[in-house]
Amino acid sequence: MIYLDNNATTRLDDRVLEVMLPFFTEKYGNPNSPHRMGYEAEKAVEDARETIAKILKVTPREIYFTSCATESINWILKGVAKVLKHSGRKIITTTIEHKAVLNTLKTLGREGFKILYIPVDRKGKVVLEKLEEVLDDEVILVSIIAANNEIGTIQPIERIVEIVRSKTNALIHVDAVQTVGKMKFDFSKWDVDLASFSAHKFHGPKGVGFAYIKLGVPIVPLLEGGGQERGMRSGTQNVPGIVGLGKAFQLTWEELEASLEKMERFRKMIAEKVQKLGGVIITPLDESISNTLSVSFPGIRGSVLVNALSSEGIFVSTGSACGSREGISSHVLKALNLDPLIAEGAIRISLSKMNTEDEIKRFLEKLEEIVKYLKI
Amino acid sequence: MIYLDNNATTRLDDRVLEVMLPFFTEKYGNPNSPHRMGYEAEKAVEDARETIAKILKVTPREIYFTSCATESINWILKGVAKVLKHSGRKIITTTIEHKAVLNTLKTLGREGFKILYIPVDRKGKVVLEKLEEVLDDEVILVSIIAANNEIGTIQPIERIVEIVRSKTNALIHVDAVQTVGKMKFDFSKWDVDLASFSAHKFHGPKGVGFAYIKLGVPIVPLLEGGGQERGMRSGTQNVPGIVGLGKAFQLTWEELEASLEKMERFRKMIAEKVQKLGGVIITPLDESISNTLSVSFPGIRGSVLVNALSSEGIFVSTGSACGSREGISSHVLKALNLDPLIAEGAIRISLSKMNTEDEIKRFLEKLEEIVKYLKI
Repeated sequence: MIYLDNNATTRLDDRVLEVMLPFFTEKYGNPNSPHRMGYEAEKAVEDARETIAKILKVTPREIYFTSCATESINWILKGVAKVLKHSGRKIITTTIEHKAVLNTLKTLGREGFKILYIPVDRKGKVVLEKLEEVLDDEVILVSIIAANNEIGTIQPIERIVEIVRSKTNALIHVDAVQTVGKMKFDFSKWDVDLASFSAHKFHGPKGVGFAYIKLGVPIVPLLEGGGQERGMRSGTQNVPGIVGLGKAFQLTWEELEASLEKMERFRKMIAEKVQKLGGVIITPLDESISNTLSVSFPGIRGSVLVNALSSEGIFVSTGSACGSREGISSHVLKALNLDPLIAEGAIRISLSKMNTEDEIKRFLEKLEEIVKYLKI
Repeated sequence: MIYLDNNATTRLDDRVLEVMLPFFTEKYGNPNSPHRMGYEAEKAVEDARETIAKILKVTPREIYFTSCATESINWILKGVAKVLKHSGRKIITTTIEHKAVLNTLKTLGREGFKILYIPVDRKGKVVLEKLEEVLDDEVILVSIIAANNEIGTIQPIERIVEIVRSKTNALIHVDAVQTVGKMKFDFSKWDVDLASFSAHKFHGPKGVGFAYIKLGVPIVPLLEGGGQERGMRSGTQNVPGIVGLGKAFQLTWEELEASLEKMERFRKMIAEKVQKLGGVIITPLDESISNTLSVSFPGIRGSVLVNALSSEGIFVSTGSACGSREGISSHVLKALNLDPLIAEGAIRISLSKMNTEDEIKRFLEKLEEIVKYLKI
């Protein structure tokens, strides 16, 4: 079994599972309970918050635990729009966002907001001139995906923030889901107001994520109730999940250098083989996260290739996980203006630090076999 | 260590952890991925859904996995209100709901809905005549807590549904969080339209719950994005959590009879001792869930008693977990019109099927010691 679908989800790190386990059956208190087991659970949650804050160089009070990035994104976009609706009605985003952003904004669009979509170039990079053109005082929020989930393109967040700040007071949200463990960045230098993260994309558990919300940013909660997370996100905290998230985040940053070097090396091996087999590289190798490689073998449908590989125990994807089953053609590839034949052939190979050179070699052998067979 | 705070959260069942483990590090696929590991994860999610549906005697398509009951409640109340806002503006609830219902409705109240609160009697039971009085065509939704989290009172859901249906077309939501494993009920006989459940209240994992939404009920999603859960709840499914939820739900129902018998017996032992020590029983023993006992020693503050017990390794609570830290006086006890001295002394003892007779005996010895000491 060779798992190369790490932008969809990752294997939980054994070291992460180990620190989670005691919180299931020993330290299982509710962090809000007024007794020792409650305080013990609360401390674990706060320790995880501090770990994350220290790495991002922000204050712990700016980190809010949620159930996933989709929740973080829905909360941030809807929560800010609700507060700022009287300040302006324009929200800016790009054509290659994750569906969590696009579909949430679609709803806000139906509720009276005007959503503006900035196009991208052939590499998937936001056309900055187009962004500049639409910025005005009516814009309350700008939401940008830092690294695209399908093709891996990295946006120049610092430059985008500079442009936005020079023209408006709009808040800036970054969907940072695909960044952690896949690129180097100094979060504090981005200087954004809001950001969304998900644990299961970096060998943490599914069902837990967090939102970064800069102190003073106007926002209302999406989940209301018992007042957990300082009144901003109710619901009993998922203590084992949060502990796992903290550990996975920490390990990812500690091992970043080595992971990137390894994934880059593997990606290069794959890209070379793909070109040798007559395939097309869609991902801009010099401006993308290190683990992602979108390629296409024109004439072979991506879904057919994914299936053929799956039956050999090798797991890659067509586009993103959501939508890939229904054969929905990718809005990201459409935004790139690719030749339809190339878009139809696209598969996404997404590596992790857990992959081995042996796995990559076996994958490339099978890929060659299958591509040659399907081309006949 | 003796854990008697099971209405706040429960210990994960070892048998539940066992079925969850493979989904962390072996079967870790994304249920939406278009390959074998994706299908395997999807099957696990659908199996859990079927298990739950079968027990509740509903169809699997009526079960939606969420991150917790608070999410289910926020989704249901806001999602229904949004669709039905043109049909009517009144929403009915009770004075002893969980904060997830009360605070969500408070927000809806600020957005133009009229929230009506039905009072309860001294036992905590909804005054049905008051309910009948306020029912009219303007009512779009009725939300009732099936069993109260602080004092354990069970509401006559079937009778309430009958009354509501005889007077309006309002939808009926039941907060069923504290019912599972604590009382016998036939969910299908309740005949409600919507219901909320949480895994960590019945020895399942934290961070996962589900919503029951009857086919045809008008509702929009709260979390939008990749279209998971048949387009109604986006976000990558928490596969290990959902698998654990399914197993915990199944075990709870299989072992219900024995659990109830045991908890009733322990509760009786505690109630007798409390009365012998001059305490007051707040919970209506004949009309409450079997595991919950709210008692008071007038003259001894509940928080002091909770602390004293905590330092002996015995964990009970004052009111609910949320709010108990801040010393917020309980809205539930207020709604009962209790003598303030009794309300201030209240502690909540909530049992689980995992408690042993030996634990109960040791708890009662310590309780006697502490109460006698504090009374001097």
